[in-house]
Amino acid sequence: MEPATATAAAAPPVPALKDELDIVIPTIRNLDFLEMWRPFFQPYHLIIVQDGDPTRTIKVPEGFDYELYNRNDINRILGPKASCISFKDSACRCFGYMVSKKKYIYTIDDDCFVAKDPAGKPINALEQHIKNLLSASTPFFFNTLYDPFREGADFVRGYPFSLREGVPTAVSHGLWLNIPDYDAPTQLVKPLERNTRYVDAVLTIPKGTLFPMCGMNLAFDRELIGPAMYFGLMGDGQPIGRYDDMWAGWCTKVICDHLGLGVKTGLPYIFHSKASNPFVNLKKEYKGIFWQEEIIPFFQQAVLPKDCTTVQKCYIELAKQVKEKLSKVDPYFDKLADAMVTWIEAWDELNSSGATAPNGKA
Amino acid sequence: MEPATATAAAAPPVPALKDELDIVIPTIRNLDFLEMWRPFFQPYHLIIVQDGDPTRTIKVPEGFDYELYNRNDINRILGPKASCISFKDSACRCFGYMVSKKKYIYTIDDDCFVAKDPAGKPINALEQHIKNLLSASTPFFFNTLYDPFREGADFVRGYPFSLREGVPTAVSHGLWLNIPDYDAPTQLVKPLERNTRYVDAVLTIPKGTLFPMCGMNLAFDRELIGPAMYFGLMGDGQPIGRYDDMWAGWCTKVICDHLGLGVKTGLPYIFHSKASNPFVNLKKEYKGIFWQEEIIPFFQQAVLPKDCTTVQKCYIELAKQVKEKLSKVDPYFDKLADAMVTWIEAWDELNSSGATAPNGKA
Repeated sequence: MEPATATAAAAPPVPALKDELDIVIPTIRNLDFLEMWRPFFQPYHLIIVQDGDPTRTIKVPEGFDYELYNRNDINRILGPKASCISFKDSACRCFGYMVSKKKYIYTIDDDCFVAKDPAGKPINALEQHIKNLLSASTPFFFNTLYDPFREGADFVRGYPFSLREGVPTAVSHGLWLNIPDYDAPTQLVKPLERNTRYVDAVLTIPKGTLFPMCGMNLAFDRELIGPAMYFGLMGDGQPIGRYDDMWAGWCTKVICDHLGLGVKTGLPYIFHSKASNPFVNLKKEYKGIFWQEEIIPFFQQAVLPKDCTTVQKCYIELAKQVKEKLSKVDPYFDKLADAMVTWIEAWDELNSSGATAPNGKA
Repeated sequence: MEPATATAAAAPPVPALKDELDIVIPTIRNLDFLEMWRPFFQPYHLIIVQDGDPTRTIKVPEGFDYELYNRNDINRILGPKASCISFKDSACRCFGYMVSKKKYIYTIDDDCFVAKDPAGKPINALEQHIKNLLSASTPFFFNTLYDPFREGADFVRGYPFSLREGVPTAVSHGLWLNIPDYDAPTQLVKPLERNTRYVDAVLTIPKGTLFPMCGMNLAFDRELIGPAMYFGLMGDGQPIGRYDDMWAGWCTKVICDHLGLGVKTGLPYIFHSKASNPFVNLKKEYKGIFWQEEIIPFFQQAVLPKDCTTVQKCYIELAKQVKEKLSKVDPYFDKLADAMVTWIEAWDELNSSGATAPNGKA
């Protein structure tokens, strides 16, 4: 299985949401992978969050419009609140969500390349995410022909007419061909498994159902759900890694369900090039494998009171419940709950109407 | 778009569940459509439920092993309880579920032909249904790579290990290429829409989520869920039609959720050849379009008490709740609730350990 090569011909003449979407990329290396995405990404603004050693220089291919933040920038902009942003973990990407001034975010990992559809055509992942975000979701009843808003599809017999308007879509979760997003134990057991199945579907994850949200190929509406997209405390100095996007996904889904917003999964695919080291992953995930057995029932049972009418209020309430109910699992959750509150404070500081634009390097 | 033609080469050498599965076909015409299905269906036993005029002779292609029941047979076998079986409506098919002595049922409409997969290979729909039924379901958490039990797939990172065993699958709901299963208003608005999208996925419908179950291409485990597969009172003498499978789907899903059983949808596709008349359909569906707006919230909120430990007990309890809560929508639901009870009585009569085989014609 190979990624697409010549991608230029597949770019649309007028890119959608050109001035309303930022692409957020966490990285520790030169961004050569952008060459392949050039026809699709070049019209957009990039926010690069440099992880690890801030004295290193990250090379960005010419012609891209970007701002770059390293750890020193994060510390300078957030001051003591920078403690809520993870270090030496791709969870640091959520800083990019916070400093963006756009309505939409697309985030992608730097080991993800352009995939090909079954006809061999390069997939413009961003274009599909935008379609997903700009069409409604249907979380209250399952449509057996999947996304009813796609061309050639509709609601099937028996779908209540009162629900056909749908609800606004807050999140579009894309998938991966080639290396699937497996945990360390599954990687160890199935080192050679590759995802070659192209499932031509987008669907709404029903209300009340949790899912494992992967941050590799993810888009969302910042205005609708941004403050819930906190990737937690991972990596350096923390007892856990590789649960950053999962944490964000659980919180986001509970809040979307409460606020009547939609979460879609399915298309688009990206080509995930390289499996991370399963031994390293096992070390990072080790505690999460136990903890998720208690975290998931916690989120499945979480109820937000009616007066939680904004994402921020919902998130602060969730932080309170995390402190109350998960601290007994491990003291880490006490710290995480505090960081969740700090995150919201920092978000509001940077995103209040009078806030000045943060100062990165371009 | 065309159905497959030469299907013989695609039949498996040893048909799965040959002596444990009946194929139930409701019909008013000669079953020429079976010719195309011969390589896939001939090893199995057919139960044909003849709707309409019982003096008509239905021709079945040679070489098929079948029993056939017409209205006179149903009246003779069920006596006064025959009132729960619809007449002049394909809802009569559920009589076939009741008289079967097998563990599994596959039911298909006589205007459904063999579809082709994207590679042009004829799809053995029954074989895929059997795969769906014999592998577990995952209703408690969504797996973003769809059915984790399919070859080349697995549970993704973040899926709790305690849930990976899954639960037994009770229902496999298949889809349709060519003519989609639309209601009359959608048929009227989009007379030319055809489903050409082959979505290569099977997925579990999450716990707590209802779906529109179509009876055209459906398989289930009679032992696990059979008594819930009642297709209601439709057609002759009833104020409604085309909601038979929907009714069965709502009841079945609520009971599967209560009992911890799984419902899958997706593959296999059949080729649905002929759209029914949208004007006739509108007449049949008319009241259902209003009623479903109240029926669906009713089923979404339905709670079964803990002591409902069998499908029969669940179903009798649901009948009670239908009487209590839906009779105010229309007196029809009062009658339907009574028929639900009669159905269970008739089911138990025919399926008690000492029951003798009913006497159809072969």
